[in-house]
Amino acid sequence: MKAAFLDKPGSLIIKDVDIPVFADDEVLIRIRATGICGSDLHYFREGRVGTNVIRTPHILGHESTGEIIETGKAVKNLKKGDRVAVEPGVPCLRCDHCLRGRYNLCNEVKFLGAPPNHGTLREYIAHKSLFVHKLPDNLSFAEGAFFEPLAVGYNAIVKSGIKPGESVVITGAGPIGIVCLMLAKLAGAARITILDVDRYRLKIAESMGANETLLPEEAKAPSPVHDCVIEATGTEEGLTLCVEYLKKGGRMVLVGMSNSPVSLNTIALLRKEAAIYTVYRYANYYQPVLELFRAGISMSNRSCRTGFRLRK
Amino acid sequence: MKAAFLDKPGSLIIKDVDIPVFADDEVLIRIRATGICGSDLHYFREGRVGTNVIRTPHILGHESTGEIIETGKAVKNLKKGDRVAVEPGVPCLRCDHCLRGRYNLCNEVKFLGAPPNHGTLREYIAHKSLFVHKLPDNLSFAEGAFFEPLAVGYNAIVKSGIKPGESVVITGAGPIGIVCLMLAKLAGAARITILDVDRYRLKIAESMGANETLLPEEAKAPSPVHDCVIEATGTEEGLTLCVEYLKKGGRMVLVGMSNSPVSLNTIALLRKEAAIYTVYRYANYYQPVLELFRAGISMSNRSCRTGFRLRK
Amino acid sequence: MKAAFLDKPGSLIIKDVDIPVFADDEVLIRIRATGICGSDLHYFREGRVGTNVIRTPHILGHESTGEIIETGKAVKNLKKGDRVAVEPGVPCLRCDHCLRGRYNLCNEVKFLGAPPNHGTLREYIAHKSLFVHKLPDNLSFAEGAFFEPLAVGYNAIVKSGIKPGESVVITGAGPIGIVCLMLAKLAGAARITILDVDRYRLKIAESMGANETLLPEEAKAPSPVHDCVIEATGTEEGLTLCVEYLKKGGRMVLVGMSNSPVSLNTIALLRKEAAIYTVYRYANYYQPVLELFRAGISMSNRSCRTGFRLRK
Amino acid sequence: MKAAFLDKPGSLIIKDVDIPVFADDEVLIRIRATGICGSDLHYFREGRVGTNVIRTPHILGHESTGEIIETGKAVKNLKKGDRVAVEPGVPCLRCDHCLRGRYNLCNEVKFLGAPPNHGTLREYIAHKSLFVHKLPDNLSFAEGAFFEPLAVGYNAIVKSGIKPGESVVITGAGPIGIVCLMLAKLAGAARITILDVDRYRLKIAESMGANETLLPEEAKAPSPVHDCVIEATGTEEGLTLCVEYLKKGGRMVLVGMSNSPVSLNTIALLRKEAAIYTVYRYANYYQPVLELFRAGISMSNRSCRTGFRLRK
Repeated sequence: MKAAFLDKPGSLIIKDVDIPVFADDEVLIRIRATGICGSDLHYFREGRVGTNVIRTPHILGHESTGEIIETGKAVKNLKKGDRVAVEPGVPCLRCDHCLRGRYNLCNEVKFLGAPPNHGTLREYIAHKSLFVHKLPDNLSFAEGAFFEPLAVGYNAIVKSGIKPGESVVITGAGPIGIVCLMLAKLAGAARITILDVDRYRLKIAESMGANETLLPEEAKAPSPVHDCVIEATGTEEGLTLCVEYLKKGGRMVLVGMSNSPVSLNTIALLRKEAAIYTVYRYANYYQPVLELFRAGISMSNRSCRTGFRLRK
Repeated sequence: MKAAFLDKPGSLIIKDVDIPVFADDEVLIRIRATGICGSDLHYFREGRVGTNVIRTPHILGHESTGEIIETGKAVKNLKKGDRVAVEPGVPCLRCDHCLRGRYNLCNEVKFLGAPPNHGTLREYIAHKSLFVHKLPDNLSFAEGAFFEPLAVGYNAIVKSGIKPGESVVITGAGPIGIVCLMLAKLAGAARITILDVDRYRLKIAESMGANETLLPEEAKAPSPVHDCVIEATGTEEGLTLCVEYLKKGGRMVLVGMSNSPVSLNTIALLRKEAAIYTVYRYANYYQPVLELFRAGISMSNRSCRTGFRLRK
Repeated sequence: MKAAFLDKPGSLIIKDVDIPVFADDEVLIRIRATGICGSDLHYFREGRVGTNVIRTPHILGHESTGEIIETGKAVKNLKKGDRVAVEPGVPCLRCDHCLRGRYNLCNEVKFLGAPPNHGTLREYIAHKSLFVHKLPDNLSFAEGAFFEPLAVGYNAIVKSGIKPGESVVITGAGPIGIVCLMLAKLAGAARITILDVDRYRLKIAESMGANETLLPEEAKAPSPVHDCVIEATGTEEGLTLCVEYLKKGGRMVLVGMSNSPVSLNTIALLRKEAAIYTVYRYANYYQPVLELFRAGISMSNRSCRTGFRLRK
Repeated sequence: MKAAFLDKPGSLIIKDVDIPVFADDEVLIRIRATGICGSDLHYFREGRVGTNVIRTPHILGHESTGEIIETGKAVKNLKKGDRVAVEPGVPCLRCDHCLRGRYNLCNEVKFLGAPPNHGTLREYIAHKSLFVHKLPDNLSFAEGAFFEPLAVGYNAIVKSGIKPGESVVITGAGPIGIVCLMLAKLAGAARITILDVDRYRLKIAESMGANETLLPEEAKAPSPVHDCVIEATGTEEGLTLCVEYLKKGGRMVLVGMSNSPVSLNTIALLRKEAAIYTVYRYANYYQPVLELFRAGISMSNRSCRTGFRLRK
C-alpha cells in the first residue's frame, strides 16, 4: 500500500509499505478521508509540537474515516464494509485514569500520528475496534473526519457547563474555536462573541452562527458580563481577553495550548472567583457527537474546507 | 379596580376593590395577561391543591405580564410604561435558603395566588421590583405569561444536566412536560420521547419537536437506554415508566407533584445507580429564559392556547 | 483444596475441589479471611436475594483478603507473597459503563459469590490482578476484609457530598450504616444521628462515634434540619424517616436495597427540592479506602465481629 | 469611644469618636477581639493592598468578635449580651450575585476595614444582624476571631472537593495555608504536604497535623501524584510548584492573591486536564465553621498567636 511519509520538515514522500497486520481485537480499515489538524501543520513545518518531536520518516494524520476491510476474531461491534470514524487514541484500559473513565489521560495511550505512532495518511490502518465508530448514513467520509475536532469541542462544552440562555465568548476562530461555537449554540447559548486576528476566519464564524465577531483590536474595554469564556488560541492575548470578558462567578475553559508559559492576571481571576477547566483531547465523546449527526444536524460545507481526501 | 374572586369552588365573581398601595421597593403593575396553571384549575374546581386550601373569597393567577403604572421611591430597575413579566414568588431574602441562592425554598415566600396571598386575576397588583422583569420587545404580553412555566422547565433542565447528543424521555405532555421538551431541545438533546394519555397533547408535543410520542399502553418493554428521564405527570404510572426507560448511570428529574405517596421500585433505581433531582418552582431562572427570548427564539402560537387575557 | 458449598438453604458442606487455573492477567490467591455480608446470609437462609437466585451447590463469600501464591505472566502490580484485598467484581472493561469509569454498572461484571460465580469461601481463587490490592502492613487479614463494605460506604459518602460541619442522619446501624457513619465522620460531619430497631447495633454505632442513637419509635416529629440523610435499611420506614429528617435543599443517599417497591412521599421531596443519589456497589474506591488505612486510621476491634477466618 | 486610626503608613493613633448609630436591622457590638490579617499589615505598612488604597485616617480590622450591647427594632436573631462573631462583609442582597447565593461577589459589598469602610479596631461597631453569628459557649473571643480566616479556608476546601483518603499539597503555611491544612484534614485528606520559605511556619504546620513539611528548595522533582493542590502564597513559585505536584485529572485551588500577573505553564495544566478553582472571601460559610466548633473541635493555642485583643 501507499503511505505519505514526512521525511523532513516541509517534505512529504509517498512510499510503498506493507499492509498492517491486525490483532484479534482490531479491524483493518481502508482510510477514505483525513482532516489536517493544526498539530499536523506544526509537525509538517517544524518537525515538532511543543516537546513532542517526530523521528522521520513519519506518517501524520489522525482525523480520519474509512471503511472496514477485515475484522479480528474477537471483534463484535463492526463488520466488513462498515463506514467508520476512527478515534485515534488507544489507551491501556488498565491504569487508574482509564479505570476512572478519563482514558485521554492514560500515560500509555497510543495516538495515531503523534510520535512515535504512525498516523492515517496511508491506505490502510489496523485499529482497536473499541475505538472505531460507525458513521451515520447521512454523513460523507469527509464530514465524518470532523468527529475528531468535534470531540475536542464537545469536551470543552461539557466542561463549560453552558446552559440555555447564557452568553459566551470564544477567543480563536480556528477549527477548534469553530467547533466550540457550533456546540455552544447546540447547548443553548443565547449569544456568542468570537474573536480572531483573521477576518476570513471571523467570516466563517459568522456563517456558523456567531452573534458578534471581533478583531482583538476591536475589543476595547471588554464588558465583564459573560457567563462563560473559551480560550482557543493558546496565546497570552487570548487568555487576557478571556479574563476580561468573564463575569464574576463565571467559568473559563482553556482548550488552546501554548508553547510557552503565559502571563495570567490572578488578581482578576480571584476577584471574580472564576472556575477554570482545561481540556486535553477527549474521552467517551465520539458517541454523543455521532448521536448529534444521527439526529440530522448537518454541517455546512464551508466548515469542511480544511479536510482533504487521500482518495476519491 | 375589578378583580376576579373565587367565592366557592367552581364560581368566579368580579368585584370592585381598591387599587393596592405599593411600598418604596415595589411597583404598581397593570396586569395584561395571565396564564392559567394546572394549580389554578385545582383551586377553582376543588378549592385546594394537596394540603394547600384556599379561604374564599380568593383571587387566583400567577403567570402574568403587565405594564408598570407607578414605581416606589427606591425602585431603580424599572420605570413607568415598562412592559414586564411578574415573578410571582417574593422571598424574605434573609433566611439561609435565600442567602444560599435558593429563594424558592424560603419558608416565608409570598407567592401570588397561593393562599393566603391573592393572585393576579385583577387589574392592578403591587409587587417587589426585584421580582419584576422587563419583557423583550419581540414578545407579546400573552407570550410573556409563559415565563413562569418556562422557569419551572428551566429548573428541571438545569437539574437534568442534559448535554448535546443525549436521549431524553418525558412522561406527561401537559404545559410543564411541553416546556421541558422545548428546553431539552434547546439544551441539545438529540432525541426526545414523550408520553401522555391524551392524544391531543401528544400532537402538540409532536409539533413542538418531539421525536417520538407515545400513549402509555404503547410503551411496551421500554428500552432502558435513555440518558435522562423527566417525570411531569405526578403519577405512579409516570414514575414507573421513567424508572424503566432510564439507562444505568442516568439521571431522573421529578417535576410533577403527586397528591399522595407513590410506589417506587428502589431495586431498579439502585441497580442503575440513578441520580434523582426534584424540582420546586425556580430561583433566578426568569433571567436566562428572558435571554432566550431576547435572542429571538420564538414560541409557536400553538403553545399559547392555555393562556388567556384579562383585557384586550 | 477445600471449599464450602451451600448445597441447599441453611446447609453448608465442605468438599474437595481442584485448585483453580489462572490466566496470564490473573493471580492465584490463598484466601485468609472473608467477611459475611448480609447478602450471604440471605443466600444462605433463602437461596436468593431479590431476583438473584443461586443454583446449588454454590460457594458464597466476597469480602476477602489473602496472599498471592502465584502470578500470571502479564501481571506486574503484584508478586508472590503479597498480602492483598480482593475487589470482588471483575467488569468487562469494554462496554460504555466501563469506559466511563462506572464499571460497577457493567452488564457483564463477574462478581464473586453472586450467582452464577462462585465466591471466596474456599482455599484458593484465581482473580484478575487489576482488581487485587495490596494490604497496608498495619492491617490484619481480618481487618482487610472490611475493604469491601467500606468501598460501598465510600461510594455513599462521595455521592452524599458531605462537607465539614454538616449534620447527617443515617437510618440503619447494620454493617453498611456503620461504615457510612465512620466515613461521614471522616468527611467532617459535625453531628451524626443514627437509627435502628436493634439496641445492640445502636451501642456499636455509639462506640463508633455517633452523636445520637435512636430507636425508630423515639424519632417523634423529626426535625427537618439535616443537610444529608443516608438510607441504609432498604425499608419503607427507613426511607420515610429520611424524607422527614431532611432539610430543604438537602441530599439523600439510598444505599439500602429493598426487596419490593416502597411508598415514597414525593410531595415532601419536591417541596424540599431534594437531590437523591443511589448507590450500587462501587468503582475505583478500594484505593482511597486503602489510603485511609495506610494513613494510620485504625478500626476498632468491635467492628470486626461479623468477620470470620477460613483459616488461622 | 476609642478607635485606632491609621493616620499614615506605619503609624496608629488612638482617637475619641462617637459611638456609631445603628439601624433597625443592625446591632451595636462591643468589640472584644480582632485578629490581624495579612491585608491589615499591608495597609499598615504600605497604605495599600494591590489596587485598594486607603484614605487616612482609617480604622483597620475585620476578624472580630464581641458582645451585643443593643439591637435594632427589627432584629430577631440576637439579643443584648450575646457573644458573637462578626462576618465583616455586608452585601446588597439585591443584585444577581446576592440572589444567586454568591454574595461575596456583590459589587456593593461593604467590607469592614477595606477602604472606604472603617474596620473593627475600635470599641463599638454597628453591623447588620444577618451577618453577626452567635459564638458557641466553648470558644473564647480570641478563638472566635479565627472564624474569618477559617471561612476563607472553608471556601477553599469546599471548592477543592477533597474526599477522604486523598493526597493534598498546600503551598504557603501562613494563616490561610494553615486553615486550609486544618480543614483539609477535617475533610478526610489522608496525606498533606505543606511548603513554605519560613521554617517556623512549617513547625506550626507540623504541629497542626501536616504529614510532610518542606522548604521550596527541598521540593526537588515534585512527584505529580497529588489529587489536589492549594496555592496559598500568591507567588509564581507557589503556583509553579502546585502545577508540578498535581496529578493528571486533579484539582487546583487558588486562594493566595498576587500583586502582579504570574507566569503559568498552561501546557502542563492542559496535559493534566486540571480543574482550577479560585477563592474570593466566602459566602454562607460562617455557619458550617461555627458548627465544627460547636461539635467540640478545639483549636490549639499555638494557632492563636496572630490574634490580639483590643481589651482584656
